[in-house]
Amino acid sequence: MANFGLSRLSVVAPFEAHWREARSAVGADELLLNAQSAETLAEAVSDCTLVVGTGSLARRGAEQIAMPLPELGPRVAVELARGGRVALVFGPEKHGLTRRDLSLCHMLVEIPTHPRQPSMNLGQAVAVCLYELTARTAIGSPVHAKEPEGGPKANTAELERLAEVIEEAMRTARYSPTGMRAANQHDLRLLLRRLALTSRDTRRILGLFRKIIWQMGSVRRGKTP
Amino acid sequence: MANFGLSRLSVVAPFEAHWREARSAVGADELLLNAQSAETLAEAVSDCTLVVGTGSLARRGAEQIAMPLPELGPRVAVELARGGRVALVFGPEKHGLTRRDLSLCHMLVEIPTHPRQPSMNLGQAVAVCLYELTARTAIGSPVHAKEPEGGPKANTAELERLAEVIEEAMRTARYSPTGMRAANQHDLRLLLRRLALTSRDTRRILGLFRKIIWQMGSVRRGKTP
Repeated sequence: MANFGLSRLSVVAPFEAHWREARSAVGADELLLNAQSAETLAEAVSDCTLVVGTGSLARRGAEQIAMPLPELGPRVAVELARGGRVALVFGPEKHGLTRRDLSLCHMLVEIPTHPRQPSMNLGQAVAVCLYELTARTAIGSPVHAKEPEGGPKANTAELERLAEVIEEAMRTARYSPTGMRAANQHDLRLLLRRLALTSRDTRRILGLFRKIIWQMGSVRRGKTP
Repeated sequence: MANFGLSRLSVVAPFEAHWREARSAVGADELLLNAQSAETLAEAVSDCTLVVGTGSLARRGAEQIAMPLPELGPRVAVELARGGRVALVFGPEKHGLTRRDLSLCHMLVEIPTHPRQPSMNLGQAVAVCLYELTARTAIGSPVHAKEPEGGPKANTAELERLAEVIEEAMRTARYSPTGMRAANQHDLRLLLRRLALTSRDTRRILGLFRKIIWQMGSVRRGKTP
């Protein structure tokens, strides 16, 4: 990260002993000293408007938009030019990102590696991605993008709030059998990210679902509205 | 190297004990087992027609042609197309290539790193260079982008059906004052188009809203569901 001039590192649910040690090591870079630690990925990316997951696509299927790394730069540049915040998410080296992690990502990026040896060392994968974003795309130099339609894009915190309220509506409406709930929660998150909602969209949809929940709740309260 | 489909590794004047150990390690890749060991750099690159040195330019002055890494790919591709052989030379991590090493190079390549932290980890520098040469310049096999997922886009009829059901839910939930309905209907249609929903999305969202309407309707029917 320091090689490519990046400075905002967030670590999710680190193993505390190792994390303390890393930050207090002699020569620990400013970057490591200033790194944030978050309980969950949702918390770490809460202010981000574009969350990009990394890893081997082989294990994932194609639930989400996946793009080869060489195409990511322009997409990120547009997002930054719009005033958005972008997170690049790397999983643990051993098993990569979980399905739950991936459901918080707007898209996936794939480093084009050789089929016989697709899985990369974490540090090298990070270096390659940041080289692509900083050296190839020259993020930092101004890129002119179209104004987003409908205002600024919703960040992760807004999308999570919306997902929760829609889930409450689903439960109240008995939309899905209990056994299907986890799958539906996952699909709902993927859908909300694919839709590229604006902050304003989320507020309006939230308003509708709250009203709906209130209305359905009146059944329980035994009142006729 | 294996990640990017390269196979010819030569090691110059290795420390014998470590080198033997590395090659005999459990899981040592074919690449490492087949690696050549040479006494001198001149011997290692003897059959090469283009020898490219790597490292931080700061220490070197401009004795030789130096190019930023993003420009190297086309130069290498031309050399290979001519039937030439290309070597990329990395120095020891501590002090980089010597003047003598550099004198065997046709040109130097620089990874565009940040002035505050120009010096890279060796493995990461190799990964970035090979990514540039194989994935960006497509030396070797072409990289295929995955088809973006989601399925066919919803057509107007599907969007209209969805808009009508959402409107019914809005009315039943008493979401908007009568005077606002036309404006909301208009905004809803704009929103549904901006979201680029697929046919499958519309069917699922339709299912949820029908369930919600049915649930709200049971209030009117005077039944407790």
